[in-house]
Amino acid sequence: MIFSINRDVLLNNLIVIQRGLPNKTPLPILNAIKFEVNQDHLILTTSNSDLAIQVLIEDKSLKVTQVGKAAIPGKFLIEIIRKLEANTIEFAVLEERSVVIKAERSDFKLNLMDYLDYPEVDFLELRHPILLDSEIIKTIIKETNYSAANNEKRPILTGVNFHYENNQLQVIATDSYRLSKKEIKLRENVESFNFVIPSKSLDELSRILDVVSDNVEIFVNPNKVLFKFPNIMFQTRLLEGKYPDTSRIIPTEFPVIIPFNKEELLSAVERVSLLSPRDKETNYNIIKFTLRSDHVVEISSTNPEVGDALEEVTPNGMVTGSSLQIAFSSRYLIEALKSFASSDIVISFAGEVKPFVIKGQLDIDLLHLILPVRID
Amino acid sequence: MIFSINRDVLLNNLIVIQRGLPNKTPLPILNAIKFEVNQDHLILTTSNSDLAIQVLIEDKSLKVTQVGKAAIPGKFLIEIIRKLEANTIEFAVLEERSVVIKAERSDFKLNLMDYLDYPEVDFLELRHPILLDSEIIKTIIKETNYSAANNEKRPILTGVNFHYENNQLQVIATDSYRLSKKEIKLRENVESFNFVIPSKSLDELSRILDVVSDNVEIFVNPNKVLFKFPNIMFQTRLLEGKYPDTSRIIPTEFPVIIPFNKEELLSAVERVSLLSPRDKETNYNIIKFTLRSDHVVEISSTNPEVGDALEEVTPNGMVTGSSLQIAFSSRYLIEALKSFASSDIVISFAGEVKPFVIKGQLDIDLLHLILPVRID
Repeated sequence: MIFSINRDVLLNNLIVIQRGLPNKTPLPILNAIKFEVNQDHLILTTSNSDLAIQVLIEDKSLKVTQVGKAAIPGKFLIEIIRKLEANTIEFAVLEERSVVIKAERSDFKLNLMDYLDYPEVDFLELRHPILLDSEIIKTIIKETNYSAANNEKRPILTGVNFHYENNQLQVIATDSYRLSKKEIKLRENVESFNFVIPSKSLDELSRILDVVSDNVEIFVNPNKVLFKFPNIMFQTRLLEGKYPDTSRIIPTEFPVIIPFNKEELLSAVERVSLLSPRDKETNYNIIKFTLRSDHVVEISSTNPEVGDALEEVTPNGMVTGSSLQIAFSSRYLIEALKSFASSDIVISFAGEVKPFVIKGQLDIDLLHLILPVRID
Repeated sequence: MIFSINRDVLLNNLIVIQRGLPNKTPLPILNAIKFEVNQDHLILTTSNSDLAIQVLIEDKSLKVTQVGKAAIPGKFLIEIIRKLEANTIEFAVLEERSVVIKAERSDFKLNLMDYLDYPEVDFLELRHPILLDSEIIKTIIKETNYSAANNEKRPILTGVNFHYENNQLQVIATDSYRLSKKEIKLRENVESFNFVIPSKSLDELSRILDVVSDNVEIFVNPNKVLFKFPNIMFQTRLLEGKYPDTSRIIPTEFPVIIPFNKEELLSAVERVSLLSPRDKETNYNIIKFTLRSDHVVEISSTNPEVGDALEEVTPNGMVTGSSLQIAFSSRYLIEALKSFASSDIVISFAGEVKPFVIKGQLDIDLLHLILPVRID
């Protein structure tokens, strides 16, 4: 295996596939990046227990002298390429079990792992992909993924539910204290599907979408889903089990509806949470939200050990309803507000002990729901 | 105690005195900032076991309605002022043991601590200060402080030695593996002194110097030293004990002298250290440095578990001496190189098992010394 390639081209591809390197693994070979060097292209693969990533590099800077395969320790390789300033980097497997990496006056020799040990990764190749703009996937992840559970009490909730039926895609994440729901119409009709992607995999996909902006084809089978970009395949396992039906917890009648400027509400909530006491169960700061009869909203917290905070926020439009007092985790509201593109948002309350709903003026297809906590 | 003040003025002063809040303290009152509100100025004080800071605020935005004193929890106060967007902030101690902080539509009430519990801080007020430009102090700290020991094996080495005699100030820091020495002439003659400032105090002073650029007067007594700026007093305890005499460990004869471009050497060393094995004692990466007979320098590391790295660096001037092989901690060299303003540096070697010396072409008053490790 002997080849040379432009440093930036290689690094940009390594940045994509590094998302597939495991943090910890009982299978040391997975710490390697699998290189397959062919006459006119390279294929690099990483994988772990959740996902597998493969990139295809066809670049005019690639000069292959000898085809071959190798399993190169991933983290060391990426660190080295990152630190090299040379334009061209040469790779050569000359002796058994080591690769020489040369660039101008730098000369590295890395011990190889046995590429025959690298587990075979099967990427789905099915018909009938779902076609999506990568920008849309990135937005969906940003708008929903943070609501997924980060503990394993109910494993299915650590994923995000993608449900498609009759041209309508519905994406839901919930940790049972709050919920995010995004609905979009797909342009073309495909077979209906219903699966749950691990939240961590979506984090990694989102990082890749920071540097990739091509369209994507999505292939699904019962166990996994493949996101296929022109030169990148990103495949993740799906979570097993039935995602709970959340449709009935979203209230339909709202006696109190209050419109806000998002930034103004956000800064007031952030200030009040500085002093607010923490909820025993979630360890998040609890704040109180009161609609006064003069239609000014008070956001407040009382912490016997530290002190009190009180902010007044004036709704930026017509208020429905007269008075209300409700308490909830400030972090849930902060995270929900930050996921909206709209600068104007509306909060609709079903009652003091019922979930409330946040929507954005511009984000009509997005809904956030937060469960209140009981206050004395 | 009732007053109002411009938010930015207050915040900038809080940023200075927050360096005096303790991280952990057995004395809870020290978590407070002591406010002394007088008719036309405020005095704020913080202190911990190492240092004490006091700022004097005389600003035209300050309006005092009622003088008074209070001990306000420091971290909460700073967080609140940081998050407030208002122009003016009002403070009022109305009830016993709580202060109300108002700004536009924000309203905070913080529990006070008892200001009578706040320990009296005596700031030195002596004659005959040493006058220094604050830029010079900042440079001295940057150039020497990182060489001080960060463990307590020999407590005196956790400080930096300032020694003044015959118009000449000599500043030395060493952890016994490397040493930094800075020498400068003072403009006016003062009494000689010799003291050791805790490295951590210098870190805090350096952070304050990031935002303050006035001249400074330095007052010294046997136990503490005061840095006095027009509106800030920064006082730190001194370390007890005699600082070791390091003059004899600096070699005077150098059979090998090699000039380098600093950046080129630095990147080569950083790359080689990616793979280098760690020293058992210091846990730092060990690299090898070889002067070849063709006057090219090889920097290399060999790590049986990972692989080898080799960089060639060409000296950027006349080399004295013929050949040399020496090994040392790459981190010591990286930190030393980064502290130089010069782009050209010179390394002088006294022998393969003797300390070597780094100097910069522009930094004539600065010297770094590094002890090699034995290689097999």
